[in-house]
Amino acid sequence: MRDFSQDPRWLSINTATVRKSRGVDLPLPQIIEACAQRGIRAISPWRDQVAAAGLDTISKLVKAHGLELSGYCRGGMFPAADAKGLATARDDNRRAVDEACELNAKCLVLVVGGLPGALAGKAAHKDIALSRSQVRDGIAELLDYSRTVRMPLAIEPLHPMYAADRACINTMEQALDVCDELDRERTGALGVAVDVYHVWWDVKLQAQIERAGQNRLLAFHVCDWLTPTTDLLNDRGMMGDGVIDIPRIRGWMETQGFAGYSEVEIFSAANWWQREHGEVLDTCIQRHRTVV
Amino acid sequence: MRDFSQDPRWLSINTATVRKSRGVDLPLPQIIEACAQRGIRAISPWRDQVAAAGLDTISKLVKAHGLELSGYCRGGMFPAADAKGLATARDDNRRAVDEACELNAKCLVLVVGGLPGALAGKAAHKDIALSRSQVRDGIAELLDYSRTVRMPLAIEPLHPMYAADRACINTMEQALDVCDELDRERTGALGVAVDVYHVWWDVKLQAQIERAGQNRLLAFHVCDWLTPTTDLLNDRGMMGDGVIDIPRIRGWMETQGFAGYSEVEIFSAANWWQREHGEVLDTCIQRHRTVV
Repeated sequence: MRDFSQDPRWLSINTATVRKSRGVDLPLPQIIEACAQRGIRAISPWRDQVAAAGLDTISKLVKAHGLELSGYCRGGMFPAADAKGLATARDDNRRAVDEACELNAKCLVLVVGGLPGALAGKAAHKDIALSRSQVRDGIAELLDYSRTVRMPLAIEPLHPMYAADRACINTMEQALDVCDELDRERTGALGVAVDVYHVWWDVKLQAQIERAGQNRLLAFHVCDWLTPTTDLLNDRGMMGDGVIDIPRIRGWMETQGFAGYSEVEIFSAANWWQREHGEVLDTCIQRHRTVV
Repeated sequence: MRDFSQDPRWLSINTATVRKSRGVDLPLPQIIEACAQRGIRAISPWRDQVAAAGLDTISKLVKAHGLELSGYCRGGMFPAADAKGLATARDDNRRAVDEACELNAKCLVLVVGGLPGALAGKAAHKDIALSRSQVRDGIAELLDYSRTVRMPLAIEPLHPMYAADRACINTMEQALDVCDELDRERTGALGVAVDVYHVWWDVKLQAQIERAGQNRLLAFHVCDWLTPTTDLLNDRGMMGDGVIDIPRIRGWMETQGFAGYSEVEIFSAANWWQREHGEVLDTCIQRHRTVV
């Protein structure tokens, strides 16, 4: 297993982690500067943050600092209540692929979506099998496009507590079943993003990481599971503050040959987003070196 | 599939659903009276509620009203940080079996426990595999006892969001693997409690219900998954208010021959526990007839 203790060489910051500084929105250019100042070599930005600053601006800034993108957040949200909605999602996902290419991201992360309307509290139906079918079709169609521009798609299985409103792919096994169906040849065009927060609980995790193998292990995200967890979305913990045995899971990844970044992705409305972003980044570096 | 539309014949009330009336603790004898008055034929009480009223009192009251117990809540919480803790859990679980026998329950429901100390916010370790091993051993030992008094044990797979603090058995597949190991002969001494809240998201649910078969389908619990869900524990919805396709899941159960009660178990601190319990029970009956 790689030694992370000396420096943040393999640390990436998902920019949602410092989306706010002392509770105030922090523009992406400032996030990038703060990361670069600390010797952080990689980030994974969100589309809304990129759009707010302008794709060109971010592209230049990333290149100027020699930053890599461990991933780009995010495509997906495939299911819709009607044909128009499906087409809108398709077009938007193609744009996400293009942006990921412009930024030279390692992969486009897919949060695949759940029941249409559920995120707004008004699910159009209760047929999660239908949503899963639309997700499969949506990934298949996007893959036809992403292959032509050589942008790998990383399905992120989300924790089952997000099955209704954010992603109806909820385990590694389920994600890999889709990979098997759509990219049987293991070309590397389709794989998974392994976020410990979403999958740590799964008794089959080690076996499924082995099943995935190096070709399909496209990203590794870390944070921690707090006890208690007070909010389903925005109460993720800093690595080391919760119950996830992160080094064990990283070991399983690296045994398969994963040699990419360890990307910190923390949504924390009441704690980390209320602190000064410099403090948060310094803490990420320190925890990366000691407990990841 | 059975017709529930005419009466509450197959409705059972898990007494946690009316644990409070207008925010005030409601004693179990009053819950029993209110259920009996409405023609409800079955309940599933919690041990703390039984203990508060006295086992003898509840036993007599249940018999006087001709009520059945669709289950008894609950045994489990097997993992511990030391041998003393494991022994305490073992002894307490035997008492739970004895109480279930005294009340003539269909089964003792097992919420198996997670990382020791996590429920109090101080996990003793992060080794969920160790907890799972202790759970397996604890069930095996309890089964030796429960077989002698003919009390079936129903492992309840809990939603993965409870893996750390309440139950490290989180899918039907995982629960049935334990059943296969400890009761290969499918004697009926060990099975599962299927709570739609915990398992609705699982892409393998139908297949695992089929795998379980009639002998191992010991209980069926219903409520609903709300979008948004504002609390990990106490924001369960009334059937029909959320996104779970309950009739579809009940259909899968009944195709396997399940012919038991549909037990309503709703933890709802901000909504249903704030209402008058009579209104809650009437709503349960109405929803049982229309959306279960």
